[in-house]
Amino acid sequence: MLKGVSALKPFLSEEFLLTSDYAKCLYHEYAEQMPIIDYHCHIDPREIYEDHHYQNITEVWLGGDHYKWRAMRSAGIPEKDITGGLRENPYRVFEAWANTLPRAIGNPLYHWTYLELKRYFGVTEPLNAKICRKIYDHCNEVLSHPDMGVRGIIQKSKVQLICTTDDPVDSLEWHEKIAADPTCPVKVLPAFRPDKAMNVDKPGFGAYIQKLSTVVGYSIDSFAKLCRALSERIAYFALHGCRASDHGLDYCVYEEAAESELNEIFIRALQGPVCTVDGDRFKTAILLALSEEYSKRNWVMQLHVSCLRNNSSRMFAKLGADAGYDSVATGNSVKKLSLLLDTMESRGMLPRTILYSLNQHDNEAFASLAGCFQTDSDVPSRIQLGAAWWFNDHYLGMRKQLTDYANIGVLGSFIGMLTDSRSFLSYTRHEYFRRILCDLIGGWADRGEIQDDMETLGGIVRDISFNNTNRYFGFGLEEQHGTALL
Amino acid sequence: MLKGVSALKPFLSEEFLLTSDYAKCLYHEYAEQMPIIDYHCHIDPREIYEDHHYQNITEVWLGGDHYKWRAMRSAGIPEKDITGGLRENPYRVFEAWANTLPRAIGNPLYHWTYLELKRYFGVTEPLNAKICRKIYDHCNEVLSHPDMGVRGIIQKSKVQLICTTDDPVDSLEWHEKIAADPTCPVKVLPAFRPDKAMNVDKPGFGAYIQKLSTVVGYSIDSFAKLCRALSERIAYFALHGCRASDHGLDYCVYEEAAESELNEIFIRALQGPVCTVDGDRFKTAILLALSEEYSKRNWVMQLHVSCLRNNSSRMFAKLGADAGYDSVATGNSVKKLSLLLDTMESRGMLPRTILYSLNQHDNEAFASLAGCFQTDSDVPSRIQLGAAWWFNDHYLGMRKQLTDYANIGVLGSFIGMLTDSRSFLSYTRHEYFRRILCDLIGGWADRGEIQDDMETLGGIVRDISFNNTNRYFGFGLEEQHGTALL
Amino acid sequence: MLKGVSALKPFLSEEFLLTSDYAKCLYHEYAEQMPIIDYHCHIDPREIYEDHHYQNITEVWLGGDHYKWRAMRSAGIPEKDITGGLRENPYRVFEAWANTLPRAIGNPLYHWTYLELKRYFGVTEPLNAKICRKIYDHCNEVLSHPDMGVRGIIQKSKVQLICTTDDPVDSLEWHEKIAADPTCPVKVLPAFRPDKAMNVDKPGFGAYIQKLSTVVGYSIDSFAKLCRALSERIAYFALHGCRASDHGLDYCVYEEAAESELNEIFIRALQGPVCTVDGDRFKTAILLALSEEYSKRNWVMQLHVSCLRNNSSRMFAKLGADAGYDSVATGNSVKKLSLLLDTMESRGMLPRTILYSLNQHDNEAFASLAGCFQTDSDVPSRIQLGAAWWFNDHYLGMRKQLTDYANIGVLGSFIGMLTDSRSFLSYTRHEYFRRILCDLIGGWADRGEIQDDMETLGGIVRDISFNNTNRYFGFGLEEQHGTALL
Repeated sequence: MLKGVSALKPFLSEEFLLTSDYAKCLYHEYAEQMPIIDYHCHIDPREIYEDHHYQNITEVWLGGDHYKWRAMRSAGIPEKDITGGLRENPYRVFEAWANTLPRAIGNPLYHWTYLELKRYFGVTEPLNAKICRKIYDHCNEVLSHPDMGVRGIIQKSKVQLICTTDDPVDSLEWHEKIAADPTCPVKVLPAFRPDKAMNVDKPGFGAYIQKLSTVVGYSIDSFAKLCRALSERIAYFALHGCRASDHGLDYCVYEEAAESELNEIFIRALQGPVCTVDGDRFKTAILLALSEEYSKRNWVMQLHVSCLRNNSSRMFAKLGADAGYDSVATGNSVKKLSLLLDTMESRGMLPRTILYSLNQHDNEAFASLAGCFQTDSDVPSRIQLGAAWWFNDHYLGMRKQLTDYANIGVLGSFIGMLTDSRSFLSYTRHEYFRRILCDLIGGWADRGEIQDDMETLGGIVRDISFNNTNRYFGFGLEEQHGTALL
Repeated sequence: MLKGVSALKPFLSEEFLLTSDYAKCLYHEYAEQMPIIDYHCHIDPREIYEDHHYQNITEVWLGGDHYKWRAMRSAGIPEKDITGGLRENPYRVFEAWANTLPRAIGNPLYHWTYLELKRYFGVTEPLNAKICRKIYDHCNEVLSHPDMGVRGIIQKSKVQLICTTDDPVDSLEWHEKIAADPTCPVKVLPAFRPDKAMNVDKPGFGAYIQKLSTVVGYSIDSFAKLCRALSERIAYFALHGCRASDHGLDYCVYEEAAESELNEIFIRALQGPVCTVDGDRFKTAILLALSEEYSKRNWVMQLHVSCLRNNSSRMFAKLGADAGYDSVATGNSVKKLSLLLDTMESRGMLPRTILYSLNQHDNEAFASLAGCFQTDSDVPSRIQLGAAWWFNDHYLGMRKQLTDYANIGVLGSFIGMLTDSRSFLSYTRHEYFRRILCDLIGGWADRGEIQDDMETLGGIVRDISFNNTNRYFGFGLEEQHGTALL
Repeated sequence: MLKGVSALKPFLSEEFLLTSDYAKCLYHEYAEQMPIIDYHCHIDPREIYEDHHYQNITEVWLGGDHYKWRAMRSAGIPEKDITGGLRENPYRVFEAWANTLPRAIGNPLYHWTYLELKRYFGVTEPLNAKICRKIYDHCNEVLSHPDMGVRGIIQKSKVQLICTTDDPVDSLEWHEKIAADPTCPVKVLPAFRPDKAMNVDKPGFGAYIQKLSTVVGYSIDSFAKLCRALSERIAYFALHGCRASDHGLDYCVYEEAAESELNEIFIRALQGPVCTVDGDRFKTAILLALSEEYSKRNWVMQLHVSCLRNNSSRMFAKLGADAGYDSVATGNSVKKLSLLLDTMESRGMLPRTILYSLNQHDNEAFASLAGCFQTDSDVPSRIQLGAAWWFNDHYLGMRKQLTDYANIGVLGSFIGMLTDSRSFLSYTRHEYFRRILCDLIGGWADRGEIQDDMETLGGIVRDISFNNTNRYFGFGLEEQHGTALL
């Protein structure tokens, strides 16, 4: 289309994001063939067990992906053609996405969309209003193939292990069934996410405690009983192979309280939300109690902080949570996070911990804080700065997270990428991450900023892509050392 | 000057900031010819009506430009040769600027100075102590031409529409006169900036209310009366074509209060500044009241936050406000901004809104918050992350704002650049912005990171340069689709 | 090692970090030969006086360098092979560092290690587990040469002046001895760091006041007496050539208090730590009092803020302070810093001031605030944004600090780099900085973004490397104008 212009790189070629020969070599010889561990995501294990097949591309792409919903709203698409049309008119929703995409240049959704079209459907044409019917039909045809169910997609993507995100009350029946099914191509482990057992400052706490009481079989009527119940559920999760917990915190908390106060907060919270300070006291106490359990079992504790949730009351009333109405928070207190980790460490109960902030400007503070709690570790970098999360998992955000990690810590011990996704087509995000990783390291080597030692650098790439994760969580998968073709 | 060095690009060539062929094509074929809408600035409409002619380059360049004053102070120039010499010795002030410039490499003033010298005066030589008399005389000679009055400059710059910034008490007489003058080459609309009607925590509130009372013709003695008065002034501004309001807030406010409290704060504030919390309550209430008016009229609400003003008491006493003594604030609460927008939306009264933070590290939070309030919009991206503001409108700051916008929103709906300037020579900032925009998008295409589709990308460039702004504000100018020469 | 790959730049060549011909010329013709002023560091003057010779490379490299300790802990090295092995088994500690290094790509320690190996020891091979015995022995052999004592290293590094960091109670005996020794190749001046005299909110205040009382020869039993004592010590430091003070503040403080309150806080603090607010009041008052002294003597006041210290209580109990357990703080209040500087200026007592934040996202706020207090300065930019500090002194952090300085201030008046180091091998950090500086400016010229004027640009490079520092502190060294070879 562009005349007289030289040396334009084709879009999304095999050299996508790889700007030096060194980077290309690192990616193609070391990273590309590595299997995937997706240690944090939000997929439904039932769909794996049942090898769910999708009706159409709209279902898999737009059924639960609030990233895309947000972009469509920003492009001026009416809600009836977004969440309102998923069942009634899936093609119109797809068409609306096709209309949105060309103007969403620079957004990671642009890259992910085309990566998924190319890798899973063989589509390389531009997706836009003119061609979207043809692409829609083609994708649906592909999805109708027997090997394009959830299991087939996982296998094609070389995923060896998935950690889901699960509530303590979950029966884990689908994890059990998967574990008992020798034909399932992937290990699926639960992760323990007890947010609802901590959110005494939000509606629904009382009802949740009822549910948890039913699951454990006794009335939870005190702080101590709640801790006991959670501890039992942790044991239950452990029996199902769980290796990690996860906590979503609006901001870092650390407020001390006596057990009598905690009991009193607990009782009040059963009736309705308590104030912020009491909420922080309660959460601090629960986190301290849980950290002991995690630590004893060598579990990984994930802390996701700095998110403002459900900013639009109007849309929360209509669509509920996780519908694309969350945002990056500011003003997080790293001092409180420091006090929390320090208290855990002082008690000898600081688990392996991954720190994620939705505000990327916390990276340096988190990375440097992580470096204060590494002493006499069983694994390298037992406290990790987590991979670029959510609003940050774009090219620049990932690159920033990697350079922040490298500048302040030891990059070679990073545990790498996760999808955090609700869709089974998102595994290309690992490819995206690995290309960025290889380009970063390859660029350093290419410009003479690090030693030209392909074996060491390739080893680091493999470790960050797979081996570090495997060791850090103790998943027990086979180490991957590949066979460099050099 | 540099021997044996290859391929040095000449300074400020036609390819300035354009680092790929794709970028050059986007700029020269799509952006360069687009007219300008300067939707936010601080120029004096009287000077347009009267087609003011400048005495000398010092007047137009240094008469009110506190950006340059700051730089000169940082270079060690005494105040007597800055604000102290403007009338008495304009050449000495110009000379002081010429002395400052060579050491201000990397500052946007460096680029703007040379862009203005080249575009308006045909000067391409380095400005420094040796040559400054010659350049001074030359510029003054050019300024004495009949077509180098304010109107001529506007016309040369292809400016079609200007929004000034005006106080509610303003009579708008110059806007009226311009509107009635068929020879005026530009549409000049007021923008409604009621800061003084809200700043109950700062000196001067009582006196201001007096003034406003005189204008509306009745005594403003309650919160409700103030709202009524502002509403009347909004109607008056609307009659003069106003499409936008503007608010300067030191930080985001959201504090609820009953009307009786607001009345009580109002009464106290007439006597002197109230405390911070009361100030926040009052401002919140006024913003909520005004948002209804804006919303009903489809006006755009601009929020400029995170500025520390008049840091130096000593210099404030000498020179007053807007003299170069402001700075970037930290620690802004995006949570409060969220509550403010959410309350407006819940009432069905959230106007189109542009969010500007003087602290560029708020960009991600603001952009992601904007994305939470786009639902069922009449225009794409009705909540906008504003263009890089003030201390951020340099190469890297503009590029960061564009990539933040793209990463988190839909870049194709961005409404683009404004000068925010007090000078009629600043329209080259639009050129500067467009070059950066084209280089960013062109770079993506050049490196194979987006589809090679010049028509779509060129269209996006045109929209961000002009059409989006026109539609978003409802200015009713003719859409610009140019004629690509390809 | 990499086959079929073209044009790989060799690691750490003479063109290291210099990516344009212009940058190479600026570095090799202007920067490289400039002597060094290391105006802020933590070395022991006694070692200079005694021309200390190191037993081994472990002592000089790892003896006190908590940057390296942190990295080793993050790589999984047990504490017994870090601080635990320094005396008992220096080779094992060196070996542990050699094991850490290859995985620390991207960390500034990687670059510094190789720069030091090459410049002081002539080692260019990759340091890793296989070769570390050979390199260890070689370095120790080099260190045993008579000219590789502390004085020899300083001389080789072309260091003309060093400012140490000293407590008010220090006798400055080693500074005295050095000053009296005509054979010493370097000027060594003290810097006044009275943190312990201000930290009423931390343990040890009472004991410290005892010590200070002994030094001044009278009982310090009031706030006024403390001010008098500090003033006397300032006079004593001035007699020893001191030109600068230094303050480490966890965060910016500004709280007003009456002298009676200050006395009362002082008395309580002798018994034990006071609360945070009282601490802030006391520190504010001391800073205001000291600023008068600094201002009268034309001293430079350095403020280092936004650090969380001793995050790990467990390791603080074992190893004490400055052992690698500090981190970047968030949420600093620039508003308070503004009030502090404004109060000093209003009293006519604002000294030349350098603002350093450990959180690089404060750069823009600090730089813009600095610009508010430059009026009628005796030197250009009397308020400076300090060089990238500690966790920020890596490639990207230095480049960010330079561009932030340039974007918001006048780069040509920047006073440049310091090591902040505890090691005499760290002078290569000046080389590292100068390369980044030359690459930044050279890149602008190369891409046609600034005037191609090598003489001016080279002059700026020389000034930032040496002359600005010399003038700003009033060190009275000979100006350096070199002889450009062009």
